[in-house]
Amino acid sequence: MNTQFPVERILLGPGPSPVSSRVLRALAAPTLGHLDPQYLAILDETCEMLRQIFQTKNPLTFPVSGTGMAGMECVAVNLIEPGDEVIVCVNGVFGGRMKDVMERCGATVHAIEVPWGDVFSHEQIAAALEQHPKSKLVGIVHAETSTGAHQPLEGLAKLAHARDALLMVDAVTSLGGHELRVDDWEIDAIYSGTQKCLSCPPGLAPVSFGGRALAKMDARKTKPQSWYLDVSMLRKYYTGAGGGRVYHHTAPINMTYALREALAIVLEEGLDNRIARHAKMHQRLRAGLEAMDLSYIPKHSLHTLNCINIPAGADDAAVRKRLLDEYGIEIGAGLGVMAGKAWRIGLMGHGSTVRNVALVLAALREILG
Amino acid sequence: MNTQFPVERILLGPGPSPVSSRVLRALAAPTLGHLDPQYLAILDETCEMLRQIFQTKNPLTFPVSGTGMAGMECVAVNLIEPGDEVIVCVNGVFGGRMKDVMERCGATVHAIEVPWGDVFSHEQIAAALEQHPKSKLVGIVHAETSTGAHQPLEGLAKLAHARDALLMVDAVTSLGGHELRVDDWEIDAIYSGTQKCLSCPPGLAPVSFGGRALAKMDARKTKPQSWYLDVSMLRKYYTGAGGGRVYHHTAPINMTYALREALAIVLEEGLDNRIARHAKMHQRLRAGLEAMDLSYIPKHSLHTLNCINIPAGADDAAVRKRLLDEYGIEIGAGLGVMAGKAWRIGLMGHGSTVRNVALVLAALREILG
Repeated sequence: MNTQFPVERILLGPGPSPVSSRVLRALAAPTLGHLDPQYLAILDETCEMLRQIFQTKNPLTFPVSGTGMAGMECVAVNLIEPGDEVIVCVNGVFGGRMKDVMERCGATVHAIEVPWGDVFSHEQIAAALEQHPKSKLVGIVHAETSTGAHQPLEGLAKLAHARDALLMVDAVTSLGGHELRVDDWEIDAIYSGTQKCLSCPPGLAPVSFGGRALAKMDARKTKPQSWYLDVSMLRKYYTGAGGGRVYHHTAPINMTYALREALAIVLEEGLDNRIARHAKMHQRLRAGLEAMDLSYIPKHSLHTLNCINIPAGADDAAVRKRLLDEYGIEIGAGLGVMAGKAWRIGLMGHGSTVRNVALVLAALREILG
Repeated sequence: MNTQFPVERILLGPGPSPVSSRVLRALAAPTLGHLDPQYLAILDETCEMLRQIFQTKNPLTFPVSGTGMAGMECVAVNLIEPGDEVIVCVNGVFGGRMKDVMERCGATVHAIEVPWGDVFSHEQIAAALEQHPKSKLVGIVHAETSTGAHQPLEGLAKLAHARDALLMVDAVTSLGGHELRVDDWEIDAIYSGTQKCLSCPPGLAPVSFGGRALAKMDARKTKPQSWYLDVSMLRKYYTGAGGGRVYHHTAPINMTYALREALAIVLEEGLDNRIARHAKMHQRLRAGLEAMDLSYIPKHSLHTLNCINIPAGADDAAVRKRLLDEYGIEIGAGLGVMAGKAWRIGLMGHGSTVRNVALVLAALREILG
């Protein structure tokens, strides 16, 4: 194995997704200081494009200096104070992680569950809010990366707000690939990752906080347990809130270049066009897979990630190894209770193309026989 | 301002330091999946080189997925349990941050202080350990980036260990630029950043944990408050501890390529040669600055960062702006109580050269007249 020049892969797993040469070139631009006016201008452009893609006017929209899970943790540590009651919707690995992260914040977590692969109805969430009326927050995953289930979000915030609770959304595998209207849907806090439908390398976690979330943070009696992710300090650097840009930590400079370029590509295509492309490519792949008698696990499948049952008789690891070694294609194994039962085929961002659909179908046909 | 192609800077501030074209090229290699055998091999090589540069055999040596402060937080959240007493040595901004981070972990912090610019003696630390005998950890900054003070470390661990306390070291601005012997000096936990003397872009925080630290983590009664930085899970991914590499979070793939290349450059030069070069360039700069009647703030100055008094009559911001706009040179402003009083000139890694010393001296001579 020559690790200096690795063999290129077609990344059709649950992320990272394929990164275009434009983004890789941007990544390699000369490093600037984190207080250089040139860098601050680049950061401002990046945050403004993030607002467009989140479809929000939230001033507090910026990339957290870590990968997607740092985004989850950033939202949780800032919105939760020890003793807060919260509701978390668990239908896969990432809902389960949200519960774990919130418990580490000292929250009393009321977890509601549906089987993996299913999604939550408005009624279930309304019932949970009625049962736990002191809950200050509802956490839910838009795109459950472990099951491929697509959770409808519209209308959920109204249920939460009627009970004076916030709505927190995990959009790691949906931002830039699925319809997601932060302001119209009144989502209070949301986070994502760069390495999914934005097709940027992993390393940053875009987040956005609305007015209700800001008010809850401003009313905190205790400091957030994380210094690194403390939004009361981060916002001074990212938005200049309180007058002037104040140094907090050294941001991942080059990753910001890459993210800006990736976001520019999203906006050049047009968000609606991009979302439509993800839908079309999903349908194309789905038709091909179903023609091979391969079946989907979730009832409401994501367009960005296709989670299918491993067919009887197929050797999970051996098939994935052949895809990787012979075809240079990465797909994902099952995660959590799905291990050994599911394959996850991502068609995200730069990777959601006719060519990749044709390729992965052809390869699966050849390997599965 | 053309933010697409920013004007290149000579980075002679407190970090980031100049990044070589070799490292930038490595950064832009095609993105791999975080479980791809090729990527895991690259990660293993990176961790092995980190061990060489930390001068340790600690198996638990890896880059945390965040910038330097994430390294501090990673060490703190894993080593501290609520109620633990700890001693923190505060002689600048970063010691102060360590105190803040540890308090957020629920520690009772006994802060010992010396004036900014000074360093701690063995006697002071021994006295603190005697005064606070239940302390489980001593935290100290090797290279205080806010003052340029160089803290001697040899012998400190023995004092801590005699009292059954761990020694935790901040080596953000020293790793790869100053002598630092993790095993010989019996340092229990240490963290650094990539964007200082390693001359890699910011985005990763190398950490290393020794056997005593591991034992303290294994004996925890509570989960670390951070999921993202929980070493009990991270170690399964980074070292395969417990059998097999288990996915935790998506690592910043391309940043790992860059770090590996940056570490390879360090080892090609040879760690001793590199440390000697930093010493020589510091002496060269110091001679030039002192010839201009510019004086150093710390008694024991770092070789990697030169913190000097702003001369009477000079306009802090105007001088730095001229350096940046006319010469393309970034130097650092004073931080914390040093704001408006100090300039910080970094000679780190790829930036610690005869050429840069000559350049910054020439520019300062011309501007200060």
